[in-house]
Amino acid sequence: MTTMNRVERIVEGFDPVKNGLDDDFVLTKLTAMKGCGCKVPRDVLLQLLQTFKTDLVINNDEVDIGLDSCVIPLRHPGLRLVQTTDFFYPLVDDPYIMGRITCANVLSDLYAMGVSECDNMLMLLGVAVELNELQRDIIVRLFIQGFKDAADEANTKIRGGQTVRCPWLLLGGVATSVVHESEIIKVDRAIPGDVLVLTKPIGGQVAVNSYEWIKKNNGKIEELGLDTAKIKKAFKQACEQMSRLNRNAAKLLHKHEAHSSTDVTGFGLLGHAENLSRVQKQPVEFLIEELPIIEYMNEIVDRMIEKGGEGFRLYEGRSAETSGGLLIAMSEENAKNYIAELSSLDNAPAWIVGRVLEKTGESIARIVPNAARRSITSSF
Amino acid sequence: MTTMNRVERIVEGFDPVKNGLDDDFVLTKLTAMKGCGCKVPRDVLLQLLQTFKTDLVINNDEVDIGLDSCVIPLRHPGLRLVQTTDFFYPLVDDPYIMGRITCANVLSDLYAMGVSECDNMLMLLGVAVELNELQRDIIVRLFIQGFKDAADEANTKIRGGQTVRCPWLLLGGVATSVVHESEIIKVDRAIPGDVLVLTKPIGGQVAVNSYEWIKKNNGKIEELGLDTAKIKKAFKQACEQMSRLNRNAAKLLHKHEAHSSTDVTGFGLLGHAENLSRVQKQPVEFLIEELPIIEYMNEIVDRMIEKGGEGFRLYEGRSAETSGGLLIAMSEENAKNYIAELSSLDNAPAWIVGRVLEKTGESIARIVPNAARRSITSSF
Repeated sequence: MTTMNRVERIVEGFDPVKNGLDDDFVLTKLTAMKGCGCKVPRDVLLQLLQTFKTDLVINNDEVDIGLDSCVIPLRHPGLRLVQTTDFFYPLVDDPYIMGRITCANVLSDLYAMGVSECDNMLMLLGVAVELNELQRDIIVRLFIQGFKDAADEANTKIRGGQTVRCPWLLLGGVATSVVHESEIIKVDRAIPGDVLVLTKPIGGQVAVNSYEWIKKNNGKIEELGLDTAKIKKAFKQACEQMSRLNRNAAKLLHKHEAHSSTDVTGFGLLGHAENLSRVQKQPVEFLIEELPIIEYMNEIVDRMIEKGGEGFRLYEGRSAETSGGLLIAMSEENAKNYIAELSSLDNAPAWIVGRVLEKTGESIARIVPNAARRSITSSF
Repeated sequence: MTTMNRVERIVEGFDPVKNGLDDDFVLTKLTAMKGCGCKVPRDVLLQLLQTFKTDLVINNDEVDIGLDSCVIPLRHPGLRLVQTTDFFYPLVDDPYIMGRITCANVLSDLYAMGVSECDNMLMLLGVAVELNELQRDIIVRLFIQGFKDAADEANTKIRGGQTVRCPWLLLGGVATSVVHESEIIKVDRAIPGDVLVLTKPIGGQVAVNSYEWIKKNNGKIEELGLDTAKIKKAFKQACEQMSRLNRNAAKLLHKHEAHSSTDVTGFGLLGHAENLSRVQKQPVEFLIEELPIIEYMNEIVDRMIEKGGEGFRLYEGRSAETSGGLLIAMSEENAKNYIAELSSLDNAPAWIVGRVLEKTGESIARIVPNAARRSITSSF
């Protein structure tokens, strides 16, 4: 098996038959939850962790230190261990792209801290018990290949892991880097006057779920009067951005002097903005004024809200992203240069989505009620 | 919640009611597989990994490089990143002890390589979807406490992790250490004349499963004519040794000049002996002549075999252990000193179980057909 072109494969779409699987094989049936949507809710976790007032920290995403990776001083002078883990369930049907997404999503927590070199990855794999041997072999091979290709692209290697049998197909990884202190971005230095930059549009959960409605043929498409062609296009757009590494975005944090950064995943844009605001040294308000949204996803959300639904709480910034973009606070001038350089490297846009304001008391993050919704078309 | 005494708690046994759970609450019902028994079979994994001839290695236990942790040269001179991960399902009903076992089992892969200092741990947790909130809170808190207490005992900290919802309760962790090259035991230097040392008896899978038969009341106890009191005692013995850190065993590898070492887990005593034999520089035969077995477990296996069963393939060395002991090749004199010192530190025995012989051609490991079965009584 050779390395596959990521975008070409996404555009072509996944054909189970061409991959040796039955016509009606659907990977995402192997779980009841999708991607980062499977996280235990933040408030529940915090409550469970209350017992530990001191040094125990579960997933730094999910506690108020607001870092995406843990950073551990080592016995060796000047060196830090930076480490993160993530695991979840399939949310797309192509195991290869799912491997890519899983790897990109794990690495993203290092990238959010400006750490662009990963020393080692571990792969975590739960093989769904209901798979027959043929299915298992095909799926696991494709998944591993996707994970490996993404790791290659990130200039890192997979040298360990664990594989168990599990009721659901479970996918994940661990990323570790040993770096000099200077390689880590200080994420607590946002100041009033900074702008907020976002490097991927939101709406990934809407794209993945509406695509599921088509596959399940559950009446939702008709009920909401949706355009399946547009959903399929949006789904591919979501696949592309989920499988795109945030590595260039990470490297440029240093060059363009980011004051603060995180990546947007399971808690949604506002959830992660809140986490990040809380760790700032100076009290600030992160004010989000614009929402870049994957094309057509805002229409779906509008229809859902018209019908009395919550629309995945997308406009509230609470819709989960998997392997979402970086959210960065930096000076406006730096932001413009950052966006220009990143767009040219990744062949994908990025946007100024808000501002950092002065605040008295505790820092907060907020989306303005009339936030502009900008529909983002894919670049392919 | 304060640190609990491990052995006292095991001896007392787990009372769901005292812990706020219903009388009939059974943690191990939350999975169809137990502990390290859940691993994807070795041959299947190797086959799945065939595609990758170069640098991709999944779980070093399970591929032929025979190391328990991956060892990665870093950009920083003389330093190595040593890392391992493991996750599995509950195999005992006390979530606290399960947390201890999970942590001990993960750390064991570092210890098997003589690395006794762990710089960081990540905790991996899948919260079973069928738990109600009360159950979830109680179980997760106890599990975390047990994991943390074991980490404290190991002089390390938990500073990251991931928690997802899952059909089964899923437990695991990642252990990472950045060490000088000299802190790692070279595991490939076994020579003819060495003896083989084992630091915990085998039979853990038999103990855990026979205890399940009692709980399930499935007729197995009567069918085989077993003594439930003896099974309950053996189960506690298994809990004690599974939750006992292999850390002292690791530290003494250096002092007593071990030539080779691994830990015994999912592939059983012989499986891990085989893995270890394959990486030896000099062709050798690891000959196992004695099987230290948790008290009464040999009787269960005998009855099963009488009835035409496989008896967990215990005597063949294929019965899975969770957080089993270290298997070490070293000179006979060093072995005696090693055993004496370890026994006094851990208050538990260790044994010479075999010898390293000359071999022409490929290295192998083997259990002699008439291997002595030694019944090991618990120390408490």
